[in-house]
Amino acid sequence: MISNLTMIEGVKTVALNEFADERGAVLHMLRNDDLDFIQFGECYFSEVLPGAIKAWKLNHNKTQNIAVPVGRIRMVIYDERAESRTKGNLDILELGRPDVYLRVQIPQGLWYGFSCIGNTPALLVNCADLPHNPTESERKSVFDPSIPYDWQIQNK
Amino acid sequence: MISNLTMIEGVKTVALNEFADERGAVLHMLRNDDLDFIQFGECYFSEVLPGAIKAWKLNHNKTQNIAVPVGRIRMVIYDERAESRTKGNLDILELGRPDVYLRVQIPQGLWYGFSCIGNTPALLVNCADLPHNPTESERKSVFDPSIPYDWQIQNK
Repeated sequence: MISNLTMIEGVKTVALNEFADERGAVLHMLRNDDLDFIQFGECYFSEVLPGAIKAWKLNHNKTQNIAVPVGRIRMVIYDERAESRTKGNLDILELGRPDVYLRVQIPQGLWYGFSCIGNTPALLVNCADLPHNPTESERKSVFDPSIPYDWQIQNK
Repeated sequence: MISNLTMIEGVKTVALNEFADERGAVLHMLRNDDLDFIQFGECYFSEVLPGAIKAWKLNHNKTQNIAVPVGRIRMVIYDERAESRTKGNLDILELGRPDVYLRVQIPQGLWYGFSCIGNTPALLVNCADLPHNPTESERKSVFDPSIPYDWQIQNK
């Protein structure tokens, strides 16, 4: 089921299934018959160590499909799109099992970043619709004042 | 680079890139322009707790593309295919970062299983070419005598 619980137009969250047993859980991520599946470009992982922040990034052409199977992540998304009805809004999502095991779809044109908010390393998985291409992304520093979110305060 | 270091015809291993920094590593998994990419069916995760064994499974139609971004896994593959030149062979692979961070491609028709051989939970990621379909797979118990591999001895 796709829900639109976020404050930014185009960002989608989908609750993912977890099938736990005593050996360890099987965890859904993305299927080619999911309603929000576009196409497969690349799957990669981003490990985030406790307290670390990876921000900010914007993809001009690529849609991200992100889940967090290990650890706890705070994901922040900022809408700076000139034509957007939700311009200026922030989404602040806390992602992790077992209570917030979601797939988050971030369309092109949005700033996003994430930090590990647990005491153990987290793993973020992205199944993007295009493979990595450094010419289609932009970056800003973690503390760039043009984005109204202060990672330092939020990570205290 | 695709290498054929295994003892079973059709099983492929590809060394994957890790880009480490002080925040945590970015880890490659699969791109749609990789030489061994077929198509995207489903991405899912299998958590394996220390000492746990998940075996045996065979997919009649599906090709698995597996990597282990977290923890340490022993993967065992058995070739029982009637027409195979490597019938009767076993592949025993130890997978995990940073030294054995590989993508393993297991074609249809092979038995496979895995166990966590570290002291912390491991995470296996599978980007298969078809979505899960329970009618195309078979299972055998971990200790089925028809497969010449003894998980109990190997896990002591």
